[in-house]
Parts: sequence; C-alpha cells; structure tokens
Amino acid sequence: MSQLVIVGTVAFDAIETPFGKTDKILGGAATFIGLAAANYHVDGSIVSVVGGDFPQSYLDLLADKGMDCKGIEVVKDGKTFFWAGKYHNDMNSRDTLVTELNVLADFQPVVPENYRDAEVVLLGNLHPDVQMSVVDQMTAPKLVILDTMNFWMEHTWDALIQVLVKVDVISINDEEARQLSGEYSLVRAAKKIQTMGPKYVIIKKGEHGALLFHKEEVFFAPALPLEEVFDPTGAGDTFAGGFAGYLTQTEDYSFENMKKAIVHGSALASFCVEKFGTERLQTLKRDELYSRLQQFKQLTQFDIELH
Amino acid sequence: MSQLVIVGTVAFDAIETPFGKTDKILGGAATFIGLAAANYHVDGSIVSVVGGDFPQSYLDLLADKGMDCKGIEVVKDGKTFFWAGKYHNDMNSRDTLVTELNVLADFQPVVPENYRDAEVVLLGNLHPDVQMSVVDQMTAPKLVILDTMNFWMEHTWDALIQVLVKVDVISINDEEARQLSGEYSLVRAAKKIQTMGPKYVIIKKGEHGALLFHKEEVFFAPALPLEEVFDPTGAGDTFAGGFAGYLTQTEDYSFENMKKAIVHGSALASFCVEKFGTERLQTLKRDELYSRLQQFKQLTQFDIELH
Repeated sequence: MSQLVIVGTVAFDAIETPFGKTDKILGGAATFIGLAAANYHVDGSIVSVVGGDFPQSYLDLLADKGMDCKGIEVVKDGKTFFWAGKYHNDMNSRDTLVTELNVLADFQPVVPENYRDAEVVLLGNLHPDVQMSVVDQMTAPKLVILDTMNFWMEHTWDALIQVLVKVDVISINDEEARQLSGEYSLVRAAKKIQTMGPKYVIIKKGEHGALLFHKEEVFFAPALPLEEVFDPTGAGDTFAGGFAGYLTQTEDYSFENMKKAIVHGSALASFCVEKFGTERLQTLKRDELYSRLQQFKQLTQFDIELH
Repeated sequence: MSQLVIVGTVAFDAIETPFGKTDKILGGAATFIGLAAANYHVDGSIVSVVGGDFPQSYLDLLADKGMDCKGIEVVKDGKTFFWAGKYHNDMNSRDTLVTELNVLADFQPVVPENYRDAEVVLLGNLHPDVQMSVVDQMTAPKLVILDTMNFWMEHTWDALIQVLVKVDVISINDEEARQLSGEYSLVRAAKKIQTMGPKYVIIKKGEHGALLFHKEEVFFAPALPLEEVFDPTGAGDTFAGGFAGYLTQTEDYSFENMKKAIVHGSALASFCVEKFGTERLQTLKRDELYSRLQQFKQLTQFDIELH
C-alpha cells in the first residue's frame, strides 16, 4: 500500500450559509483532504498542529478512517486554528469573519520517520515555508501536489515561487491561476504556470468544474449539477484529497490516470457540499461513491463516430 | 435528406472587441444557424426578411453553403435589421450600441410551401409571435427547437409562454433560465421549464459549457478552452445550428443522440469565436470540424472502472 503524506490545517470552523449556521465544528484543509483520501487504499499520514482544546474524538475519527495522526502535533497549552465565515446567497463568495491562527502561527511540521519515503505528498493550503519544510523532509516523492491561495501570492510571493519549483501538480482556482500567472485566459495561465515548476496544472472553477493541463493536453471534468449547495466549505480540499488518494492507490501518475483522479475528486467534492463541514464525508460509503462516479460518466460520456 | 426550417434574423452587425472593430458585416441569428447547420446533410431553409440594401452576395453565400433562401423576403424599399455592439475586456458582457429593427418591425414569416412538412424547426431568437406563426405553418414537425432571450421575457411574457407549449427543446443561457423559471439553481430551473412545454432544456453557460436536461437525465459538454476569444457574436446561434443540423441529419431525436448534437454544437461554436462574425464559419472545412470533435473527446472522455 502506497503512502500519502498530507500537510495542512486541522482546525475549528464556524460556518454560516443561507441554510443555517454551525458552532465550532471540525474543519481544516488536511481534515477534508484526509477524509477524502481515506476512501482509497492508501497509507495516509496527516502532518499538522492542534491545541489542547482539540477533542480527542476528532483525532479518533481521522484515525478510524485510516489516517495516521502521529504527525499531528498537540500543543497542550495552545489553541487550535479557528476560522469563521459566512457565505453569500449565491454560495460563490464568502466573507471571512474570524481567522485565529493560534498554534498555527509557530507551526514547524515534522513528517513522521516512517512516512519520509512516501510516494505522494499533498501540500495543503499553508504558508509556503511550511510546505517547503515538508518537501525537504521527504526522501524522493514520486508526486508532489500543492494547493495554495491568493493570500500567499500577495504576502509570500518569493517563498511560494521557491516551493513551486519542487511541485509536480498545482491545484488552484481560476482567480488564483490568473493572479499567479498574470494571464486572463486560463489556457495561457496554465502554460505560464507550467514554466514555474508544476508540470500539471489543475484549475478549479467551482460549480463550473475543473481543468487539468499538461503540455498540449487538456482534460475537463464538470461539477455535478446540484439542486442546491448546502455548504461549499472544504470542497476544494476534498477534491484534492480524492485526486491524491486515487493516484496514491493506483500508483500511476500519468496524465491518463490523472483524468480519472480528477473525476474521483469531483465526485467526492459533490458529496462534501451536501452538508455542513465534514459531516457528509464522515458517513460516505463506498457504494455511494461508485454510484456517483456512474453519474459522472452519464453526465459527460458520449460516443461520436468520426468519419 | 431531412428538412430543417430556420427562422431568425438575417442582418448587419457592427462589432467592437478588444481585438478590433468591424464595419457593417453579415450577421443575424438565422445566418449563424444556417452556416452551422450547413455542415450537415440537411435540406435547410432560412425564413427571414432583409431590406433592399442587403447584398445579393450574402444571399449567394448562404445558398452556396446549401441553404434555401426562398423564405428570405426582400423588402426592396426597406432597410435590413442592424445591430451594433461593443464587448468588454472579459468578453463575457457587452453593450448594445445600436438596434435598428427596420424591416424586422413588420416581419410576417412565410415558410415556403415545400418546407411546411419539414422534420425539424429551429425558432431563432425573435418575437414569440413570429416564432408561433412559423410553428403554426408547419404540418407536423418531429422536433421544434426554440432560442429566446431575456428581452422577450420582459416584454412579451404571455406570447412566449404560449409558444413554449409547442416547443420540444429550448436553448437559453443560464441567466435566461433563471429569469424564465424564477429558480437560481439550474437543476431546479430546468425542472420548472420542463413543466412549461419543452421536454428538453439546454442551458448554455458560455465559456463554462452547456447542460442538457431531460427528466432525471443530465448531460454536460464543456466549451473548448481557448487561448483567446476573438468575437463571441453568434456563438449561441452557431451552437443551436450545429445541434439542429446534426439531429436533422441523423433523424434521431433521442436524449443519447442529443448528447452528440450538443458536442457538435459546441465544436462549431468554438470555431465561431475565432474570428469576427461569420468569417470563420464561412471557411470551415469538414476535416477541421472532425479534428475539433476529436479534441472534445480528448477533453472529456475518461475510463473509470467501477468495481
């Protein structure tokens, strides 16, 4: 069984959408990534940090799903990273109400010894220096995947550029791709980003699906058309977790196999948005995932004779 | 060879985009539809009206492509419909600078006698009364396709609702679908619109592709990711023309075949936006279309084992 190292936040979220609001619930990029990747036969390790206020039951939940939590440092007298946000009516934009870095401010990631030769590394959205530190601890990963966001482009550009050189696959949204490349056209943006390090560029367009670029090749997977999106929090991380989990399981890092990985990621993301936070991912069953993958096939597959 | 009746504007357009501007050039919904449908083995007739100022060479162009122009009334002492518009930098929005209805104001469409038993009718974007008049002249069409826009929803709601009852397939964009249905979710919008007449609902999302809904089934075709869109004018009409042309040629009006028709429409629309107005459609060759269809396959097709 191949190994997957996931670095990212494990956190508390408080979410408000037009459908309701939550108290502090389980959140964080690495949490969503881990729960998504747990649907695959992988030996996964989460590298993160939490405070003494973080419930053991949450760590148990991740462990029960098969995620190794030895890499999650617990700072007993510290507080866990907390984010609160409120979505607008269209669900496509949100306001951040609270960001308390807490223990994340001094996070020094330590990859457990027995995961340093893992095949796949997923660098979740975090300070690029933290992402770099994780890459540097790895022996010889076959695939390094990076997620980031505009905040790091605005505040830590040089550090981000340095880590990008070590990255095989970058996963960002359309606005981030435009900001990173300075190009409006996503085709041009993807070309430019490929000169910055990542050989594969995933551009997520939310409800409009995701694009995968590699050299002259392009693949597109739609998002599943839904009657309603209940809570978009974590959808992008879930997508990345499914993508990484599928690739780690199959040990095939080709463009063709990445197509399938993108569809797996999209299917998992379509579950994520059905309930608040990680709720839907926690109860997700294998046959539900397969049934949704079947829906993606019906949604996209056609047979055109070219003669 | 099956027959296709197209009603819509044949017009002059003047277009300004960030890449340049044109004088009065050939335009109009029925023109784009006709040029797109001309790529298929169909016996097509355009029903429209032009003024004495409309060049015979434009009519010859449509005829050369195989479109019967007997249904295009020429009002010798009238002026042709003229539209001028300017696109914003993102190409997703535009300002209408001029709309001169001219001969279109009194347009009474007459479907040529030998086309009244045509299999497929495409009602291009026009006053719903004009669309209704064309449907009423048909004997027993197997498929009635309608394109419309928000202007008619705002100004001629009752007439639009009446013609919708006679329609099998409606082709509108996302904002129009929301306005017509009063639903924000496109899935819900499509369901509601199916109760208004059309059994098949196509929702065009521009650069984000197109969705086809029918009962519980959904199909999605992306737009081809392009380095740049030169001029979006007529892309929606070209899409509809390709869709209708393919269905008319194959004489198969099933959901499965409509999937292929949508991909054909998307492929043709991807050519349309490469140059000003109808320029690219005029020179389009069969092997170029097939090669682009191949690109759509590569863009969207994947093979997931479900076990």
